[in-house]
Amino acid sequence: MQAIAQSNVCPFRWDDQTQTLSIIDQLALPQREHWIPLHDVQQYANAITDMVVRGAPAIGITAAFGFYTSATKHWAIDNRDEKRARILADKAILAATRPTAVNLFWALDRMARALHTHLDDATPSALLREAFDIWHEDVDMNKKMAAHGADAIGPIQNILTHCNAGALATGGLGTALGVIREIHARQAQRALQAPHQPPAPIHVWVDETRPYLQGARLTAWELLHDDIDCTLITDNTAAHLMQQKLVDAIIVGADRIAQNFDVANKIGTYALAILANYHHIPFYVAAPDSTFDPVLKTGNDIAIEQRSQDEVKRINGQLIAPPNANARHYAFDVTPHTLITAIITPNGIIQPNKN
Amino acid sequence: MQAIAQSNVCPFRWDDQTQTLSIIDQLALPQREHWIPLHDVQQYANAITDMVVRGAPAIGITAAFGFYTSATKHWAIDNRDEKRARILADKAILAATRPTAVNLFWALDRMARALHTHLDDATPSALLREAFDIWHEDVDMNKKMAAHGADAIGPIQNILTHCNAGALATGGLGTALGVIREIHARQAQRALQAPHQPPAPIHVWVDETRPYLQGARLTAWELLHDDIDCTLITDNTAAHLMQQKLVDAIIVGADRIAQNFDVANKIGTYALAILANYHHIPFYVAAPDSTFDPVLKTGNDIAIEQRSQDEVKRINGQLIAPPNANARHYAFDVTPHTLITAIITPNGIIQPNKN
Repeated sequence: MQAIAQSNVCPFRWDDQTQTLSIIDQLALPQREHWIPLHDVQQYANAITDMVVRGAPAIGITAAFGFYTSATKHWAIDNRDEKRARILADKAILAATRPTAVNLFWALDRMARALHTHLDDATPSALLREAFDIWHEDVDMNKKMAAHGADAIGPIQNILTHCNAGALATGGLGTALGVIREIHARQAQRALQAPHQPPAPIHVWVDETRPYLQGARLTAWELLHDDIDCTLITDNTAAHLMQQKLVDAIIVGADRIAQNFDVANKIGTYALAILANYHHIPFYVAAPDSTFDPVLKTGNDIAIEQRSQDEVKRINGQLIAPPNANARHYAFDVTPHTLITAIITPNGIIQPNKN
Repeated sequence: MQAIAQSNVCPFRWDDQTQTLSIIDQLALPQREHWIPLHDVQQYANAITDMVVRGAPAIGITAAFGFYTSATKHWAIDNRDEKRARILADKAILAATRPTAVNLFWALDRMARALHTHLDDATPSALLREAFDIWHEDVDMNKKMAAHGADAIGPIQNILTHCNAGALATGGLGTALGVIREIHARQAQRALQAPHQPPAPIHVWVDETRPYLQGARLTAWELLHDDIDCTLITDNTAAHLMQQKLVDAIIVGADRIAQNFDVANKIGTYALAILANYHHIPFYVAAPDSTFDPVLKTGNDIAIEQRSQDEVKRINGQLIAPPNANARHYAFDVTPHTLITAIITPNGIIQPNKN
């Protein structure tokens, strides 16, 4: 069945007149809806490093537009080799922003291939088309995932999600939240068709997702924006809800998937997968093509980013721990494929444990 | 082996001249060391409800002194029945503060029995002695648990704890942190004895423990205070550390233990027990006699306190979620005894799964 879900949430705005991408400041949400225009490669790189934009597919799209911005700056250089070298040096700056999400490298490599093809064009407009293709293909893949995911999961009451794998993490609609939006839309449609006996609307448990609180700040904001019933919980509450039979399924996004289908995703995902397994609750991952690493064999090979310990010790700038305390901040963890019920992709469902 | 550990941390101060108990404000820590004198029963009750004092044994001790404060107020009442009724009405106020920790009811019932015995005494000084006995017996039980726990766990490098089961949660030394202090002290002693080949000092992973952040605020503060090496992590990091073989054991306190040894403790404990089980890591609970419920057969019967959703949506008063978001705040969860390696008590070790 085709996807019927829609969302008005999108983290990007393109201004054709000024040739500028603006991104919604995901550190200011939900308190303020603040848009930041990106004018040069360093601004693009900082936006990714500082998590003003985050989410594996959204990082890839941002990097693609950053690459285009670099191309426009250097396109007038006469010497062909120097022109290419300058743009590829900027590509390296963009690639060095964050290590775990593979979509970043995938998008930049795709832009580099387009550069190779179009280096002698009069204008870099082909690169702008390529960046837009990366964006629009992502939205298209989200729609396909939404449909496949809703087909696979079927009608459901309580679903739990971690971090933000939503419209804000992608070109729009979202990966895990795209599937949730589609299930919501289908249950709303069935309710219209059977007004005397409407199915219960979907309800989403939202893990707050420390330390960055992407669940509390972004996922709750997105779901409220689209009128989807949701309840915020601390990350350590999920097991209790599962024990009380208040969770029917778990769905998350992914930052990188190895060839054996081990999944790197936001720290805390691995714990949820173990808890789901213990309680016999299905555990789904939704990810577009660009999240599948073409090289790494297993999750053991995935680089796990460690970020500043200050991001654990402070919340909104306020110290929550003794100033002299040590803290450790792993941004991601790896869930072995053995704990994953299914990976929802634009091309269908992968069941890593069924041959 | 006897306990050798000590701690300078204690949440209580008694002023004999003014007959007043002061408690350290556990909401102000670690930023400020602020002591609050408690003058009447309502102040005692509010301190418990608002979590200015928390931790099952510390709540019991506080309630005992609150009971004594009530007795001093009503002792001059001539009518014996009225005097008793007034004091027992105050007991009911103290008992209604929090539902899960059984030590509260245990301490109040013990004070009520002392009241029954001493109702005709000229002064309520026997009740003050009883309150002090409850306090000092708790410290004594902590020392015994520390010794039994250190005997059972043996030399160890990385131990993980959740919430604060420390000196601040008890009369001093702590339950889970008492055991950690004892292991630390023994390894320090062995290092002195074998300076050429000293054992590695113990290192503690401290779960921050949302939403109240008792780990970040209290446990980290206590351990730093006693020079024990520790690292703060978000609650969702523990599984990743276990996967990386960076956790050798887990130890937590308890708020109530049913007759089948199911354990109610801070929300997140149940998840840790499942994760420990999955990774074959021993999972210990340390609890004094007063935590064992004499009535409830299994953990299913334990009342789980739900607190204000604002405590999830705000951190230090600052909103971290959309203002219109729903949140759910369970303060505790129940860990079935099947997941517990051993319960460390003042009387020795209970292995709930070995007969």
